[in-house]
Amino acid sequence: MSEAAIYEQLARILQTSASAAGGAVPFGDDMAAIPGHDQLLWTTDMLLDGVHFDAAVHDWFLIGRKAMAVNLSDCAAMGARPVAAVCAVSANVAMTNAQFVRLHEGAHVLGLQFDCPLTGGDTNRWQKPTVVAITVVAEVGESGPVRRDQARVGDSLWVSGKLGGSIRGRHLTFTPRVKLGREIAARLRPNAMMDISDGLSLDLSRMVAAAGVGAVLDSASLAAVIHDDARTLSERDGVSPLDHALHDGEDFELLIALPADVDATLCADLGLSRIGETTAAETGVCICDGETTTPLAIRGWDHFK
Amino acid sequence: MSEAAIYEQLARILQTSASAAGGAVPFGDDMAAIPGHDQLLWTTDMLLDGVHFDAAVHDWFLIGRKAMAVNLSDCAAMGARPVAAVCAVSANVAMTNAQFVRLHEGAHVLGLQFDCPLTGGDTNRWQKPTVVAITVVAEVGESGPVRRDQARVGDSLWVSGKLGGSIRGRHLTFTPRVKLGREIAARLRPNAMMDISDGLSLDLSRMVAAAGVGAVLDSASLAAVIHDDARTLSERDGVSPLDHALHDGEDFELLIALPADVDATLCADLGLSRIGETTAAETGVCICDGETTTPLAIRGWDHFK
Repeated sequence: MSEAAIYEQLARILQTSASAAGGAVPFGDDMAAIPGHDQLLWTTDMLLDGVHFDAAVHDWFLIGRKAMAVNLSDCAAMGARPVAAVCAVSANVAMTNAQFVRLHEGAHVLGLQFDCPLTGGDTNRWQKPTVVAITVVAEVGESGPVRRDQARVGDSLWVSGKLGGSIRGRHLTFTPRVKLGREIAARLRPNAMMDISDGLSLDLSRMVAAAGVGAVLDSASLAAVIHDDARTLSERDGVSPLDHALHDGEDFELLIALPADVDATLCADLGLSRIGETTAAETGVCICDGETTTPLAIRGWDHFK
Repeated sequence: MSEAAIYEQLARILQTSASAAGGAVPFGDDMAAIPGHDQLLWTTDMLLDGVHFDAAVHDWFLIGRKAMAVNLSDCAAMGARPVAAVCAVSANVAMTNAQFVRLHEGAHVLGLQFDCPLTGGDTNRWQKPTVVAITVVAEVGESGPVRRDQARVGDSLWVSGKLGGSIRGRHLTFTPRVKLGREIAARLRPNAMMDISDGLSLDLSRMVAAAGVGAVLDSASLAAVIHDDARTLSERDGVSPLDHALHDGEDFELLIALPADVDATLCADLGLSRIGETTAAETGVCICDGETTTPLAIRGWDHFK
């Protein structure tokens, strides 16, 4: 079963949730609405030792930092301003006091850079690998939450930064695009935005499926957003740099659908790169090398496969 | 290292958190403040398969229900009104789709009884035991948040309901005291309140330590709040029913410090039972059988021991 399938089932059950109650954000977006508090959004992310980090290798400060950063990235995706965080930890019994505190420091210090202090939490110990779950509340930007499901046919598709190979270290050290997300929301009025957490191909497929549109990526444009880490990995594993950029998880850059007539100079000023456009749904998700348009393989990180 | 010790260290590090910023609730209470949003509080709790529930035995609906209930119990302890929840789950690979959905249904259905729908979350799968972390936002009651650290010497100590032996099933099926907590806050103006999650003796010791007072429990009064489950367990394990009531975890009743001149009839109407009083700090935490006062063993559930 895919994550999409289970989300659909959950959305049906949680029919009384914020979206059905007329909230501004439907179930399954980067953040959820808080009923009765329209100016607030929130998000939660759980990181697992052995899945999202490796306690045998990574510094606990960076692990805590990442647990905060992935939530701040969700705020960026909604164009929202983070306000505060809580952190629940179940620590493996081998974790020392100093490591436990360092984990919280990593989360707190990054949070403070975005005016998002850790305000409380929950602590447990068990025999299994360490689990860290942070929840962040944020304030909606002035132009409202930027949803992921409102792309229209003919939108231009853009990404912030470069993609691929984050496993080389960026997945722990990336700076969440909070400020950029708010600038994009305020100055470009995007139709849709999300963060790229599970790989461009998979996350783009989610964005277009949510909107009922298709997309064509331009391979020449994609070549310009391949991260050096993707090239380095490619030399080692033989997978092409482009495939790393398309399918690697945890880039935590922003994927944005902008109206076709958007000011391209302003986009460039914000460091955005155009990578394609949305199309009618029938197209599906494709890639074009300038001559031939072929269906794009969707191979990102699906937590349920 | 005890949970208290680690909390103290965390509180020092998170010096820029809500409490230091002048928020209404210090670090370590049942819920935390959300800076800049004084009318809101929030709490998070992480439940672990093999620690807080047993997936081999318990119904996933009840497990999800408990994950919501423990958070609602924190709301009760603050006299707050729950608003909404998010749920992060890392499911063991053996969990079926139907079980996964049932887990969320259990949380959502209980939440709805308290106008606290599940609004979103995060999903993962891994090879390890299932982890469920729910976070709840709540609105502060009209008389403000009821903190746990404001008991004064000479307060009377009260509990809602009966204590001990919740492991026989109540830890999964208890009704969080949300309505009662709000009534207590509005009608009795307690000096301090918390929920009893780790056992009366340990939680009371935390309440009095936070306030810098002591406490004497009355064993005759305690005899009246022993749950039948504690008696049943006692027959099996030889531990006295009183010891079960004093030290068993997961009662999720309320522990309340009320001014000495409180209206006892009103307390009785609300189903509260008087179990002792606060004293000067030098007393520590004691129990009195009518003649002799002896130090009370503190033996509840410390997640860090």
